[in-house]
Order: sequence, then structure tokens, then C-alpha cells
Amino acid sequence: MNTDSDTIAAIATAGSEGCISIVRLSGPDALNITEKISRSAKKPTGATPNTVLYAHIVGSDGKDIDEVLLLILRAPKSYTCEEMVEIQGHGGRISAARIMRRCLDAGARPAEPGEFTKRAFLNGRLDLLQAEAVQDLVKAQSEAAANMALEQLEGGLSTAFNEIYDALIHLLADLEATLDFSEEQLLLPVYDEIKTLNILIMNKIERLLKTWPQGHILREGASIAIIGRPNVGKSTLLNRLLDKERAIVSPIPGTTRDTIEESILLHGIPLRLTDTAGMRTTECHVEREGIERTRKTIQQADLILHVLDASQPLDDEMQAFWRKIQQNKLLYVVNKTDIKKYNHSENLPKNRTYEGSLLNNEDVIRLKNCIYETITSEFNLPDQPHAVISERHRDLLQLAQRSLKQADQLMKEQIEEKTIFISTHVRDAIEQIGKITGRVYYEELLDQLFAGFCIGK
Amino acid sequence: MNTDSDTIAAIATAGSEGCISIVRLSGPDALNITEKISRSAKKPTGATPNTVLYAHIVGSDGKDIDEVLLLILRAPKSYTCEEMVEIQGHGGRISAARIMRRCLDAGARPAEPGEFTKRAFLNGRLDLLQAEAVQDLVKAQSEAAANMALEQLEGGLSTAFNEIYDALIHLLADLEATLDFSEEQLLLPVYDEIKTLNILIMNKIERLLKTWPQGHILREGASIAIIGRPNVGKSTLLNRLLDKERAIVSPIPGTTRDTIEESILLHGIPLRLTDTAGMRTTECHVEREGIERTRKTIQQADLILHVLDASQPLDDEMQAFWRKIQQNKLLYVVNKTDIKKYNHSENLPKNRTYEGSLLNNEDVIRLKNCIYETITSEFNLPDQPHAVISERHRDLLQLAQRSLKQADQLMKEQIEEKTIFISTHVRDAIEQIGKITGRVYYEELLDQLFAGFCIGK
Repeated sequence: MNTDSDTIAAIATAGSEGCISIVRLSGPDALNITEKISRSAKKPTGATPNTVLYAHIVGSDGKDIDEVLLLILRAPKSYTCEEMVEIQGHGGRISAARIMRRCLDAGARPAEPGEFTKRAFLNGRLDLLQAEAVQDLVKAQSEAAANMALEQLEGGLSTAFNEIYDALIHLLADLEATLDFSEEQLLLPVYDEIKTLNILIMNKIERLLKTWPQGHILREGASIAIIGRPNVGKSTLLNRLLDKERAIVSPIPGTTRDTIEESILLHGIPLRLTDTAGMRTTECHVEREGIERTRKTIQQADLILHVLDASQPLDDEMQAFWRKIQQNKLLYVVNKTDIKKYNHSENLPKNRTYEGSLLNNEDVIRLKNCIYETITSEFNLPDQPHAVISERHRDLLQLAQRSLKQADQLMKEQIEEKTIFISTHVRDAIEQIGKITGRVYYEELLDQLFAGFCIGK
Repeated sequence: MNTDSDTIAAIATAGSEGCISIVRLSGPDALNITEKISRSAKKPTGATPNTVLYAHIVGSDGKDIDEVLLLILRAPKSYTCEEMVEIQGHGGRISAARIMRRCLDAGARPAEPGEFTKRAFLNGRLDLLQAEAVQDLVKAQSEAAANMALEQLEGGLSTAFNEIYDALIHLLADLEATLDFSEEQLLLPVYDEIKTLNILIMNKIERLLKTWPQGHILREGASIAIIGRPNVGKSTLLNRLLDKERAIVSPIPGTTRDTIEESILLHGIPLRLTDTAGMRTTECHVEREGIERTRKTIQQADLILHVLDASQPLDDEMQAFWRKIQQNKLLYVVNKTDIKKYNHSENLPKNRTYEGSLLNNEDVIRLKNCIYETITSEFNLPDQPHAVISERHRDLLQLAQRSLKQADQLMKEQIEEKTIFISTHVRDAIEQIGKITGRVYYEELLDQLFAGFCIGK
């Protein structure tokens, strides 16, 4: 079924609220199908590329279904590089569904998720990195994330990977050239050049790998766990963070677990705040399940806010428990300094400790800035994100890195017979990098990648 | 602020799910604003009408915000009859919001609800009936409702009202002509003609008024109350109706009250089902509040399903209570005929009684058909809705009807001096009909009418 000769159709606007609905068609029959189901002064099949026609979509009973505009986008100058029509109707669920059904009646088939973008990729309009950026742009929850996606869409990240890919191809050619030399002819300087090039490539990969935390924060948001004894002000902290910056109020779908999770945008950075409800039970006699849940939250957290009460002594048992968790991710929030009795900060790392009262507005603003700065420095977030990799890229880059390290090891041994094995490792690296940009692909990889797209994109 | 010389902008696609977002601009500066915030090979201000340009929207920092298509629609051949641009971006909440903000930066102001359609009306592209149809089409919950809206958008209803309006103008001219006659010249035949014309008009109004229940059912859905003693099968009835026809699963926003309300589409007719939870308390010792709530539901219902249990005797006290409610809206559902012990149907009106077991699939299908037939015959729903009025039209028509009846009364008295009063009544009727089509309007009427529209329409 899923061949390029099919003409695909999808409703490309959201459910019920929109004032305009768009049904998108792409494929060789896009114009013919539109002509079959519409009436207009000018025929779609005769229309100039990039024109808008006023038309009516006609039902199977010959009666009008909707008054529409037809955007005629002809191959190869369309999103998919194929013949495309966008049918823009008055909107409404029913109307869009009827237009869609008419398209199917007339020979189109329903598009799979991301299939328009997949065709744009297969037809050479976008590489895989750019294709991924399209969906990142749709899903972006912050301006920084949108900037990052657009940078990627415009080829910012592609350039970095293409450079690596081309250098690897060059390396492989040089390597294979050495096979033609007889043993006595083999020049060590050539081999040294190859080794140096490999190291250069590994450095580039290393630099790209370091951008992953940024990408993670901007794409998925920073995960913040709020921990601490009962009544120290954990819920107050959550509410104070939520109230003023309630930019994204809905919990991120699919991520909500038993614990309370809320999302906010803090100075443009998406944060997912989790109140570790499991640790609320008192006296540290926390049930196993509670501990397990909290431990998981803490493990997955990018930053842990440990709330302490300045009016209460430190709880040794609790302290011992916390000490087991990753200290490098901790920010100590010493609350209730307005009724302060104990000087907890003496025992805490200075650059990791904040003191204040969550009831005081200025203190809350200071805390927010403190959280913001901790995240930006921890994740090395630049003002303008540039060439930032995703989890998929990281995984493939790490595989490439491993192959090149193995190649490097063999090169150090300088046994010429190993050239053939070195080549194999370099080829492996080329394949991994190729899978990132799409120079190397197979159906399964594409299926997996585009499955996360929305239908109509 | 709200003048036609403003250029207005709005996001015309829904919230977050869409794969394409549209920001719509209308007004004299639409093209200039677009040019200020975009870069493209061809300039928007120089573009041919009805063309699509490939462009990038540029942020205030000079960096790209989104890759877009620009639909250039020039006055007067656009939806609003003004200069219009539709900026079609990759979608996503952030991206749409940023494009919108750039439009505002460049001199547009945010559009009010329905303001694009209001401009289409003010510029003579649509009359008020057609303008209302645009929103009806967006909101349509069934194909029949969408058909009705499109019929109205294409002028089906306008024709009916324009005929009445024109006839009234004719009537008024004839009436005022009689004022020029001296008393002795006044010809009774002329006066008879006027009377006859008035009656013809009143008949037309009467016919239109009769279409209101159809419009009500198709626009808002039929409201169905389920009443009866506990354990007779009310919840089963609700569930059986919901399960198979769960076409619209979400409750209609704003209408959900304390009682459970669910919406379904039954053979294309939207039904809002209300389970009268308040009457669930036993032995008829229903609390005042429960009775009040149920009474309200019953009062507003278009059809009441009274569920009875064939395995239990009729409850006299409860029967006495039900007897007080409108019997003409009742459909008796005698359930549990599989364990039947009593023959309730003997005491119930035959054409208003259904017998069966809600556990039996065939019986449920029969019940659905029974409900469908009762509604279609009660509300006189035709296969293809045609020229169906709304509540606003009904209210104005009733005022016009009252004026014409008063005119008719005065005409019967045949006292010539009354001609001037008759004219006044006819003028009143003309104003009411004019307000329906928009031949007569004032700012307040438009504000009220368009307030119900979505922003961007």
C-alpha cells in the first residue's frame, strides 16, 4: 500500500476548535481527485502552480459540502515535491471529515503519521535531521525550543553531521588506498595522517555529544523533583513556582505518573515539576513503594530541589537517606528563614544552597532565578541554541564513537594487516552517521522515526 | 479602535494539536505588514491576487521564526472583501503565537470574535443570515446540521426572508399610497388587496416559524431526559444508548450541570441525554433540591423517556408525580419484559409506549428507532433540511408577526384614519425582518451576534 504512487490525504488542522480546516492531498492524482470532488470557475488540473482557487466541495449526492479555497502546489515545488492540493474549508469537525471522506471516495488513501514529511525526505527536499525538525517545531513548548527546531530545519545541524560524514568517507578512501601499497611501499606518514584525521573526527563527535543535555532540556523540558520532609514547604514551593509562571498548565501527556507533575515555563525553559508525594509519610518510616517511586523520580530528575525548614532541626535519619542520592544534581532550598532558628546553610555547599521564605515574593523571584541559573549552567544552555542533538542522534553518535575508538586502537598497533579491520570499523561509523542524516536509511528506521509525527504533517 | 481601516490579525487554527497553523490578516495594511515581517523571493505587495508565496517569517532579531506559505488574497476578491494574507506555518502553539506577535508588532491589532465575517457582512459579501451560517458550519455536530448551515450560507434562508421583506415594502408603499386619496376616492378593492397581501405575508411567517424546532434540534441537539424509579434501568438505558452510537463522547461545554449529561448522534441527529440523578432517592421522599433539578431538566427536555419496570407494580405515588409533567413529550419505556409480571402498557398510550428488555440487543435497536421516529415526527425533521430558522430568527419573526396581526386587526376595522397606525405596525415588522437579514442593523446587534463566533472567523 505504502508506495509513492499513492495519493495521500489527511486533515492537517486540529480537532474541533479551529476556524479554518485544511485537508491536504499529495501524490500524482492530487489535482484530479480535487477536480472530481469540487466545482470551480477554473479547473484545478489547469491551474497555474502556486495559485488559489475559489471552489465548492460537492458531496456524492451532488450537493455542496463546503465553500473552500484550493491551494494548488505543483511538483516539484511543493512541500513533498509532489503534486499537492490543500483544501481550506470553513472548519468544523463535520465539514473537515466530509471533505476528507470525499477525497478517499475519489481515490486518495489516508496518510500515515508524518507521511508528507517522509515523502519530502524520500524526494530529497529534506534530510532526516530537517524532517525531525519539522515535528520538533510543531511540538515546541518554548521559544528556545522553536528556535532550535528552526535552526535544525534550516540545515544547521545537517552541516555538522555532513562534515563528519564527508571526513569519514575521506578517511575510508585513504585507508583503502593503503591496501594497494605493497608492504615495503607503505609510508608511515600517510598512516599518521589517517590517525590524526580519525582523532579530529572523534573530537567533533565528542563536541556534538556534549550538546545533548541542551537538546534534552529544550525538547522534553528539565525534570525537577521536589523532595523533603513533610511540612517544610514542598507544596508551597510547587504552587509558588506554578502560580506566576503558569505558561504551560497541562501535564505533559504520557508522563504523568502517580506523583503530581506540573509543567511551567521559567524564563523560556520548560520545567516539569514533580512533587514526591511518596516521601510525605512521616518519621522516615516510608513504605517501600513510596521510597521506590521517589527514588525513580530522583533518578530521572535533572535537578532535585531539597526543601529544608529553617525553623526545625535537621533530621539525621532523613539526612542519611538523602545523602545516598546524587549530590551533584541537588539544590538545597532552605525555607522559613522568617522564623529561622537553625543555621542549616553552615552544613550545606554554599553554591548549592538557597535561603529564603517562600511566603516572600522577592525571595520566590530570587529562587526562580537561582533555579534558572543552575539549569542553564548545568546544561550549558546558550542564548541561541545551535546544532543541538536529540536522543536518537546521541545513541547513533555513541555507536559511531565506539567504532572509531576501536579503529584508533588498531591504528596504534600499526600492523598493516589490520587495515581491513580498521576499514570495517570506519564503515560502521559511516553507517551510524548516515542513519542520522538519512544518507543511509531503511524502511524500518523511517517507520520508527515518522511514527512519532502527527497525521497531516 | 474598531474601525474598518484597522488591519486585524488572528490565529485561525486551533490550539496545540494541528499540523498546520494559520495566522489571518485583513485590512488595508495586510500586505505591507506581511512584507515587513517576512522574506521571500517575490514581495507580497507585488504579488498577483490569489497566489501562494514561499517565505520565512523573520523575528525582531532578524532570525527566522518559521518557514511559511503566504496566501495573497486581494480586495475585493477575498473573504472580507479587503486585502487579506493568510500565513500558513508549520504549526505548533509557539510558532503561531510568535507569528501573531510579529503581525501585531508590525501594526495589526488582534481581531475580535467573528470580525472577519463581520467585515464580510459590512462589505456586502454576506447578509447576516449567511454570516450566521458560517459559524453554524464550524459548530455543526452532525451532517444534517452541516447541510442546513451550508444551505443557509448559500442563501437558501435569505431568499425566504427577502421575499417577506420585499412584500412588506410593497405593502407599505400601497398603504401609503392610500393616504394620497381623498376619502371619497378611497377604493375598497385596494384596501382588500392590502389586507390579502398582509395575510399572505403572515402565512409565510407562520410557515417559517414552524421550522424552528428543526433548527433547534439540528443546532443544539434534542435534549432527552431519562426519568423513572430507581433500578428500573435508567442507567442501563443511558449506557446502551451511549455504547453503540458513541459518536460525540464529550459533554457539550457549558451545558453540563449537576446531572449527568452525555451526547450521542442517533442516525445523524445529535441527542443530549440527561440522567435525572435527583430522582434516584427512593420512596418518593425526594428532597426538594432533587425535585427542583429534575423538574428543570424535564421542562427543558424535548423528549422525556419514562422508564418503567415490567417486573414491578406501578408506583401510585410516583405516577401521581409524573402525571403533573408534560404528557405530550413523554415516551414510556417499559423495560425488563424478559421477567415481565405486570402489563403496564394497558394503562399507557399505545403510540407512546415501547416494550422490551434493555439487555436484548434487538430490543435496544428497536428502542433507538422508536426514539428517532418520535423525534423526527415531533420536530418534523425532513430528509434534507431547507430554510430552517434559529432562535434569534424566531424571536424577531414573532415580533414581526405580532405587528402584522395588529395591522390586520386595524384593517378589519376599515377606518381610514387608522392607515397611519397600520403603517407604523408594518414599519415595525419591516424592521424586525430587516434585523434578521441585516438590511437593518446597528452596532449593538452586530456585537451581540458576532460575540458568539470564534476568533479568526
